[in-house]
Amino acid sequence: MTTPPLRVTVWGEDRHERVDPQVAELYPDGMHATIADAIREHHGDAVEVRTATLDQDDDHGLSDEVLAGTDVLTWWGHMAHEDVRDEVVDRVHEQVLAGMGLVVLHSGHWSTIFRRLMGTTCRLRWRNEQDRELVWTVDPTHPITRGVPQPIEIAAQEMYGEFFDIPVPDELVFVSSFSGGEVFRSGCTFRRGHGRIFYFSPGDQDYPVYHHPDVRRVVANGVAWARSDRVQRAVPWIDRRDVGQFEAPT
Amino acid sequence: MTTPPLRVTVWGEDRHERVDPQVAELYPDGMHATIADAIREHHGDAVEVRTATLDQDDDHGLSDEVLAGTDVLTWWGHMAHEDVRDEVVDRVHEQVLAGMGLVVLHSGHWSTIFRRLMGTTCRLRWRNEQDRELVWTVDPTHPITRGVPQPIEIAAQEMYGEFFDIPVPDELVFVSSFSGGEVFRSGCTFRRGHGRIFYFSPGDQDYPVYHHPDVRRVVANGVAWARSDRVQRAVPWIDRRDVGQFEAPT
Amino acid sequence: MTTPPLRVTVWGEDRHERVDPQVAELYPDGMHATIADAIREHHGDAVEVRTATLDQDDDHGLSDEVLAGTDVLTWWGHMAHEDVRDEVVDRVHEQVLAGMGLVVLHSGHWSTIFRRLMGTTCRLRWRNEQDRELVWTVDPTHPITRGVPQPIEIAAQEMYGEFFDIPVPDELVFVSSFSGGEVFRSGCTFRRGHGRIFYFSPGDQDYPVYHHPDVRRVVANGVAWARSDRVQRAVPWIDRRDVGQFEAPT
Amino acid sequence: MTTPPLRVTVWGEDRHERVDPQVAELYPDGMHATIADAIREHHGDAVEVRTATLDQDDDHGLSDEVLAGTDVLTWWGHMAHEDVRDEVVDRVHEQVLAGMGLVVLHSGHWSTIFRRLMGTTCRLRWRNEQDRELVWTVDPTHPITRGVPQPIEIAAQEMYGEFFDIPVPDELVFVSSFSGGEVFRSGCTFRRGHGRIFYFSPGDQDYPVYHHPDVRRVVANGVAWARSDRVQRAVPWIDRRDVGQFEAPT
Repeated sequence: MTTPPLRVTVWGEDRHERVDPQVAELYPDGMHATIADAIREHHGDAVEVRTATLDQDDDHGLSDEVLAGTDVLTWWGHMAHEDVRDEVVDRVHEQVLAGMGLVVLHSGHWSTIFRRLMGTTCRLRWRNEQDRELVWTVDPTHPITRGVPQPIEIAAQEMYGEFFDIPVPDELVFVSSFSGGEVFRSGCTFRRGHGRIFYFSPGDQDYPVYHHPDVRRVVANGVAWARSDRVQRAVPWIDRRDVGQFEAPT
Repeated sequence: MTTPPLRVTVWGEDRHERVDPQVAELYPDGMHATIADAIREHHGDAVEVRTATLDQDDDHGLSDEVLAGTDVLTWWGHMAHEDVRDEVVDRVHEQVLAGMGLVVLHSGHWSTIFRRLMGTTCRLRWRNEQDRELVWTVDPTHPITRGVPQPIEIAAQEMYGEFFDIPVPDELVFVSSFSGGEVFRSGCTFRRGHGRIFYFSPGDQDYPVYHHPDVRRVVANGVAWARSDRVQRAVPWIDRRDVGQFEAPT
Repeated sequence: MTTPPLRVTVWGEDRHERVDPQVAELYPDGMHATIADAIREHHGDAVEVRTATLDQDDDHGLSDEVLAGTDVLTWWGHMAHEDVRDEVVDRVHEQVLAGMGLVVLHSGHWSTIFRRLMGTTCRLRWRNEQDRELVWTVDPTHPITRGVPQPIEIAAQEMYGEFFDIPVPDELVFVSSFSGGEVFRSGCTFRRGHGRIFYFSPGDQDYPVYHHPDVRRVVANGVAWARSDRVQRAVPWIDRRDVGQFEAPT
Repeated sequence: MTTPPLRVTVWGEDRHERVDPQVAELYPDGMHATIADAIREHHGDAVEVRTATLDQDDDHGLSDEVLAGTDVLTWWGHMAHEDVRDEVVDRVHEQVLAGMGLVVLHSGHWSTIFRRLMGTTCRLRWRNEQDRELVWTVDPTHPITRGVPQPIEIAAQEMYGEFFDIPVPDELVFVSSFSGGEVFRSGCTFRRGHGRIFYFSPGDQDYPVYHHPDVRRVVANGVAWARSDRVQRAVPWIDRRDVGQFEAPT
């Protein structure tokens, strides 16, 4: 039995890259292109990766058709969370509950879709001053940690610190420290409906973080992990049931 | 040191009671009155309980002032979730994140406030045909289980069954079975922001469940548990921080 | 990249089968043989399954060499937990902490190895009187639930009920009900050291449970899930570290 | 209704204090005396605190009678874990499962009782070179965090770092960082049987950590949290049950 290729859509806000020369220099084809490359680099023929961006069309590149053909969506946004149309957020929300995997990256913690899935403010402590970040594995049995050193060293990064106002993660995979002494739950998984969600915090636009080999590996591992095992894509939907009225496998 | 009384607001939809004679017979002063009595019965002078209802005023009895003076809010609704104004849901959501406790009862699983805090559909399997419900304790170390038998027997109840589309609870306290063989995670806790949430499923309007002594005890235990230990009521809100810029206790 | 076959060792106590004609009729080659077949049936060439039994030799078939060549061990025992030598329990314990997967079945809840990994009594409520068991999925995102109906129906089984004295599972996958109205956390995962553990309760010697197609599927799914992603088999072992003295991927 | 005083037994290994002048200077009456004072300081008449030490008698001060009269036991040991008699470990283990609270401090992570309750190696990364430790709250709804700053600053401490080989905690309360950039899950809770366990890592014998006001507060909060709500002290013990054979509250 052959597993069909994992269909990944890498969503990028793609604004900083077009207005800020420093960001454009780090990510000349957009951050989404670099992230897409990381996934291809690790999974090769086992993935089909496409990208979509905020200003691409009215759907931000995320039509019903695109989402229906997406096993796992990755999300990076920062300066324009407000510009994502509610209708598209509704659509992504429904697909996640139906079983589409979601990998939320860095400042995506403040996106409408992430906050809606979490139910909390998703606020955090931050400082953009070239802190060194060390990303420590606290769950070495987790597939997302495969092949990463202990710790991942990121020479310079924006600091994200606790308290990070999220629900208690279903699995805490990574915890980071920063030069200033702050800590952060930097790798967290959540189940919502039939969907799996991985939040991974390294990755500010001002730093070459998505070129870092270990970060690339974690993103690739996370995408593989977030794929659903379910055959059908469907929002949980049961209703009145008679005694003995049961459901076949789905 | 004396602990000040726990200020509880019992919110009731109070519609079935006024349109359905059978419900009115079971709960002549409204379900909220019966629930309020249960809390007073167990906590006496240690609580100050008031009630609020959907049609009481434009705020559904939940003005900013009322919520500011509420340590723990209980929520029962069923036929009119849509009639709760968004502005009031926003207000309750913010207060929960700021530290107000929330006890969601039975069909409140489908309320806007609960679904917003959970981020999922909160759907479930159901059947309203006089099933016997047994409520089993699976975490005997939890304070909410204090004084309850193993199991609680409820002679007749609406069936709620799995899959219940909620996030994985932070603590699973009770699991119920029903005559039809269904099971349900009937007692669950969640942390959201600074607030504690307890969901407890027994309690349909068609049955005298809130007169059941063990159910009354669990509701009272849940209210006590949901009270915050924090001194100040505030939504998590941190922002940029310099190195070494820390926070005093709150 | 080809994944090497999953090496499974199915351990069976194999005593009931040899002293009780009724059990021998249900499992003429021993329960371990039936369980091994279930795993082969679902995984085909992707697995290499061998069996080992209590009275096979002084190591109960679990020499250092066998364990070193085992990715996942399954454990069924009931009447002779005391006869498993401490030295073998030590060995299995160490291998689990080093990354060997462990699938503990039914009355294996009372085995020395399971109790040592849990740290609790692992006691439970039971009754062997042909209860019908329904096994409900409460985490439909979990790979162990792939392909199973909601619920699995087992016509006759020993009842296992709460309170089941285990640590809170890392993941609660299945909850069962029984004719008598009892409930049981029947599918639970735990991480210990580098190892993954799955406990699955259906399966008494007096019933043909391991011939049930859905039970066979769950056992096969569980074995696949318990396989470690780590390259090396090693007990967690770090010690003094200088500043900046970090570890490469393992 | 008046709550009876919380009966705490502070257990100290009390060896370093008697052989190492530097430790004796920091803790002239033994570390246990300082810890006991911290608990009294915060709870006053609401506690009755006694101490017990390794070399006090054959029971290490922990006779059946002492344990039966102890609501919560705190445990600090380091150089002599091997000298704690198995019989006493058995006794403490049984009492924890029966509902006695346990607060394990610092190097107590390597004690026989803690490892037996956890089922893992409880190994960790360490370095004793005056690292600054910052203890961050990651669960601000937890009663153990009441009154502590964000973060607690400890000027000099032994470093404890990940991977810490424990089961996934039931609640992760604190995460620490160290000057060297390491992180550590420094405040964790676990349920085992009817007992509540709190592990808190600050506190090496070479530093005046138990004189630190915030550390003292956390130890006091932890002791209060670990107290059982159950009326009776009993190891979970159920057995065969007929249909409908249920248990009264305990």
